[in-house]
Amino acid sequence: MIIDCHGHYTTAPKALEDWRNRQIAGIKDPAAMPKASDLRISDDELRESIESNQLKLMRQRGSDLTIFSPRASFMAHHIGDFNVSSAWAAVCNELCYRVARLFPDNFVGAAMLPQSPGVDPKTCIPELEKCVRQYGFVGINLNPDPSGGHWQEPPLSDRHWYPIYEKMVEHDIPAMIHVSTSCNPCFHTTGAHYLNADTTAFMQCLTSDLFKDFPRLRFIIPHGGGAVPYHWGRFRGLAQELKKPLLKDHLLHNVFFDTCVYHQPGIDLLTRVIPVDNILFASEMIGAVRGIDPETGNYYDDTKRYIEASTILSAADKRKVYEDNAREVFPRLDAALKAKDR
Amino acid sequence: MIIDCHGHYTTAPKALEDWRNRQIAGIKDPAAMPKASDLRISDDELRESIESNQLKLMRQRGSDLTIFSPRASFMAHHIGDFNVSSAWAAVCNELCYRVARLFPDNFVGAAMLPQSPGVDPKTCIPELEKCVRQYGFVGINLNPDPSGGHWQEPPLSDRHWYPIYEKMVEHDIPAMIHVSTSCNPCFHTTGAHYLNADTTAFMQCLTSDLFKDFPRLRFIIPHGGGAVPYHWGRFRGLAQELKKPLLKDHLLHNVFFDTCVYHQPGIDLLTRVIPVDNILFASEMIGAVRGIDPETGNYYDDTKRYIEASTILSAADKRKVYEDNAREVFPRLDAALKAKDR
Repeated sequence: MIIDCHGHYTTAPKALEDWRNRQIAGIKDPAAMPKASDLRISDDELRESIESNQLKLMRQRGSDLTIFSPRASFMAHHIGDFNVSSAWAAVCNELCYRVARLFPDNFVGAAMLPQSPGVDPKTCIPELEKCVRQYGFVGINLNPDPSGGHWQEPPLSDRHWYPIYEKMVEHDIPAMIHVSTSCNPCFHTTGAHYLNADTTAFMQCLTSDLFKDFPRLRFIIPHGGGAVPYHWGRFRGLAQELKKPLLKDHLLHNVFFDTCVYHQPGIDLLTRVIPVDNILFASEMIGAVRGIDPETGNYYDDTKRYIEASTILSAADKRKVYEDNAREVFPRLDAALKAKDR
Repeated sequence: MIIDCHGHYTTAPKALEDWRNRQIAGIKDPAAMPKASDLRISDDELRESIESNQLKLMRQRGSDLTIFSPRASFMAHHIGDFNVSSAWAAVCNELCYRVARLFPDNFVGAAMLPQSPGVDPKTCIPELEKCVRQYGFVGINLNPDPSGGHWQEPPLSDRHWYPIYEKMVEHDIPAMIHVSTSCNPCFHTTGAHYLNADTTAFMQCLTSDLFKDFPRLRFIIPHGGGAVPYHWGRFRGLAQELKKPLLKDHLLHNVFFDTCVYHQPGIDLLTRVIPVDNILFASEMIGAVRGIDPETGNYYDDTKRYIEASTILSAADKRKVYEDNAREVFPRLDAALKAKDR
């Protein structure tokens, strides 16, 4: 089985965006604020949006199951207050839940949290609980910068975030560390802010002893870990300057990287420097880079081709990257699959 | 000849730091503000600080000439106002000038600018002019984020920066895009902020048409280009989505990467994906990562070893990386060397 641990519902019916626009208008004009029940999307519309997009490409490319969360760039936690984020997260998570119910063999949910700048993260726990207990979600996305590019929250190692971590450990779910749209004109969302956040999150972990407090806490750093594997020597050296243990002991029981790196040399670097147990297959399809690479004739984000073509990974390694590691990092997914004899 | 295009005076005598601390104290207590002439460092002290550090390692490792600028993390443009930055830049640049005079075969200067958050960059021009005309400096360091991790200036593509670019073109000097200390607790200075700035600067160029306005403008993105080469497929794909030309046509006449990547797989990735004409040898020695890699027994920042060990670069390629490309990108350096029959 091939599990893609990083998919977002980027192809939701237009009604979702319309509802969000009405919600944003409602921040200034409360009379215009829509109710959740005003959003009406039929099962047929959901089916169509998935079958003609993600599922079609999964079949073409040969992946089986996608861990599916709301569209990352649309989370936009910087918009409005906690109530706005809360209503928006509930709507978005419910759609992912419905997709997972319609396509139970192909999709399983991961939750967006109703984060809001300056608001205590423990306010996110009811939504997290609902997604895990009622929706069967197997992970969460945690935004280290709900300000959208202004970086005003404390680092991930701060006790500020501990209420979330306590719940993650309780439910044995990992978090993908994933920012949303940048509203800072310095940072292009998918070309700078996403990658910067990945690097930043890793370094926040490196400088701290977070995983001493939470030995079972697990983070997935998406987009191949930002700049981290390319600068693995730098990070090993910085850990050494800071008198931290070797990175494999200090971080690699808790930090994992996905394979959203859109060319063969990048995947080769990733698999050369990061232990295979810490790499999870992912494509973030359909996402930021939707085109066909003129140098190969294939989609940039068809990351399975790069794994297949790898001469660094053995067949057993590839199985870990495709499936076994995801089952380890997402134990609730593993349990759900085993319950269905998968 | 082996030219290291990225060295900072990280080993300046302690008197410099003391002077800076007095200057910072003087921001609140003007009576305590030191004069530039209060800083007294003898030629012998300068010689000692270089001979026992940078020059010793250059001789051991086999590089000949370092393009030498004030310590990046000490620029700290966020401290005080323009007058504070102006006095500090003058003091720091003069020390680099004196080092270059004491060791004319081994060091040539690149200028720190007296940037200050929210201040028009054209205020930096007198210092730039002095460094080029009187000190014989061959390049500048340009900080895209003088706020120190809050990213409040416009992107590098904005006309805000054009006065600097006009002077760079007039004098035919390149800029290394280099931030300073992060005062945002989210960003570790050398483990996150530096790499993020590199990625951010590249993407600011990618989304713009800056080099249509300045076809001869040249930027060096340090630290191996941050996350850029590792995600070269992503950047090629994003340029395609944005209907920009191929990156080689859109950016690679103007954007260059240094080799400050502190392990062999990283250098191999860099040299595999970035055309050799766009790679300049550098070590940033003595800098952020000063230790010995237990996996190799060599210094992490002894980047010459990785270039030497490369099986991707031919002997002719290595000559480009070590020397020819630096002469192209720094024409004033080339002219100065030729004037000495080098």
